[in-house]
Amino acid sequence: MARSTSGESVLTRTMRILGAFSTVSASLSVAEISRHADLPVATAHRLVGELVALGALERAPDKRVRVGYRLWEMASRSSPARDLGRAALPYMEDLQAVVREHTQLGVLEGADVLYLERLSERDAGRNLAEIAGRLPLHATSVGLVLLAHGPPELQERVLSAPLRRHTPYTVTDPERLRRVLAAVRRDGYVIAPRTMTEDAVGVAAPVRDHDDRVVAALSVVVPLRGATAPRAHVPALLAAARGVSRAMGAPVRGGDVVHTRGPTRPAPTGAGAEPGPVTPSRPRTGACAATETSH
Amino acid sequence: MARSTSGESVLTRTMRILGAFSTVSASLSVAEISRHADLPVATAHRLVGELVALGALERAPDKRVRVGYRLWEMASRSSPARDLGRAALPYMEDLQAVVREHTQLGVLEGADVLYLERLSERDAGRNLAEIAGRLPLHATSVGLVLLAHGPPELQERVLSAPLRRHTPYTVTDPERLRRVLAAVRRDGYVIAPRTMTEDAVGVAAPVRDHDDRVVAALSVVVPLRGATAPRAHVPALLAAARGVSRAMGAPVRGGDVVHTRGPTRPAPTGAGAEPGPVTPSRPRTGACAATETSH
Repeated sequence: MARSTSGESVLTRTMRILGAFSTVSASLSVAEISRHADLPVATAHRLVGELVALGALERAPDKRVRVGYRLWEMASRSSPARDLGRAALPYMEDLQAVVREHTQLGVLEGADVLYLERLSERDAGRNLAEIAGRLPLHATSVGLVLLAHGPPELQERVLSAPLRRHTPYTVTDPERLRRVLAAVRRDGYVIAPRTMTEDAVGVAAPVRDHDDRVVAALSVVVPLRGATAPRAHVPALLAAARGVSRAMGAPVRGGDVVHTRGPTRPAPTGAGAEPGPVTPSRPRTGACAATETSH
Repeated sequence: MARSTSGESVLTRTMRILGAFSTVSASLSVAEISRHADLPVATAHRLVGELVALGALERAPDKRVRVGYRLWEMASRSSPARDLGRAALPYMEDLQAVVREHTQLGVLEGADVLYLERLSERDAGRNLAEIAGRLPLHATSVGLVLLAHGPPELQERVLSAPLRRHTPYTVTDPERLRRVLAAVRRDGYVIAPRTMTEDAVGVAAPVRDHDDRVVAALSVVVPLRGATAPRAHVPALLAAARGVSRAMGAPVRGGDVVHTRGPTRPAPTGAGAEPGPVTPSRPRTGACAATETSH
């Protein structure tokens, strides 16, 4: 492997170049790339030139560089994000048709939520989750579900580090957060009011794969003072999460997902879904970050 | 740049490795990668190992390799596919809510259609277009729109090469195809019945950017004998394509797009959209690959 004087391989430096782009700075000059990637301009220039020649990057008429369709295609067509997206989108569309605000799917990546899909009404309320964007685990409903079912070492790492208070309602006390995570595992969903933005409430449930592992979380984000109480979306959300899990090959089970009549039946959405079997612990109010933060 | 004995750079070989994955073979063994990428096993093994270490690839417990979330994230968050997807999805959802079959968005990549987004009913008819998948330009409605507005040298290249007949209705005669492309430019949309699969009809319209260039095509794919005639979807399709174009910063214009009352008004969908100004050439039947192939 070729190494620079700093001992870094070509691929390490290339990943740093790709890492320089973000959802807010989607196109960069070579000078900006060399600064963000902490590489000499000559190195950045040479590597960017080769990546453009290979179609991994594209150079606009204004000389600014961005990721090319070719790299997007190669990264998308065989990524696990594609399997999850394909399995989830039909159920997300059903859910979105009922909720009509925001419906999204996220996975655990490092110590963040990485969002794979998002459907939003054009006039829906504010939502910080972006496709291919990241948000913190402890401050989002998707993140709380992923953290609750994540590796114990990750939970300890997150719980032992200082937790940023995004709003007065973000759960930042480790012990409270521990209780929230336990409730998520027990109830099979979480309601996280105002933990990331003060005007929105997230409701999330786990998505499982053929090994019954939690591989993603499905959520709806609704306004704090919407026409429908956030809790009313729980049955439809759990039914959709169950549908996605089944599409991912997850074994049929009771507990945190609605029992359905077979693999071909579409996941029920809206009031039609029986809340009965949804949460084993009725009449408990379910895992709710707010009830944890408000006392 | 490090070069193998064959003179290929590390990045060239890495792109060949990423190119080995496809929508049908999303996960591969190192042996399969070395075969598909035409690289010595030792080279494939070393590069795959480094790409896994960098998070660009992921190795499953069964040792098979696939693209990792990290590469998907870096490729997705700054790709033009993301801008188009963000601009298109809300309008695609409106369109899909009316059509309830398949709604998709594609761009020109090389001499193919590359599909960026697709929304489908769970019980919708067959559709070969997959997200991050490719289909031929001359046999798809999206491809006919992109080819009609593509670079003249690409048109000549496609028209001078032998064109594959995917069905008896695929336009493969260069002169007929030339007439279809002229009609697409004149009418602002195309109806392509049974050109890719015998049981489906595609209807597509161009999406333009801030420079008024055609950068994508929006389409609906409906069954040959569906409840609604394919032509009846044209006004909603054109309205949605206009909405996406406006969201991409395209200048307001008449001609092939519906005239609306301002940037904030949602694109009309369904029967509500006035077909009047949609096609300048009424009562012509519009660009229709079938009328070209049927005589």
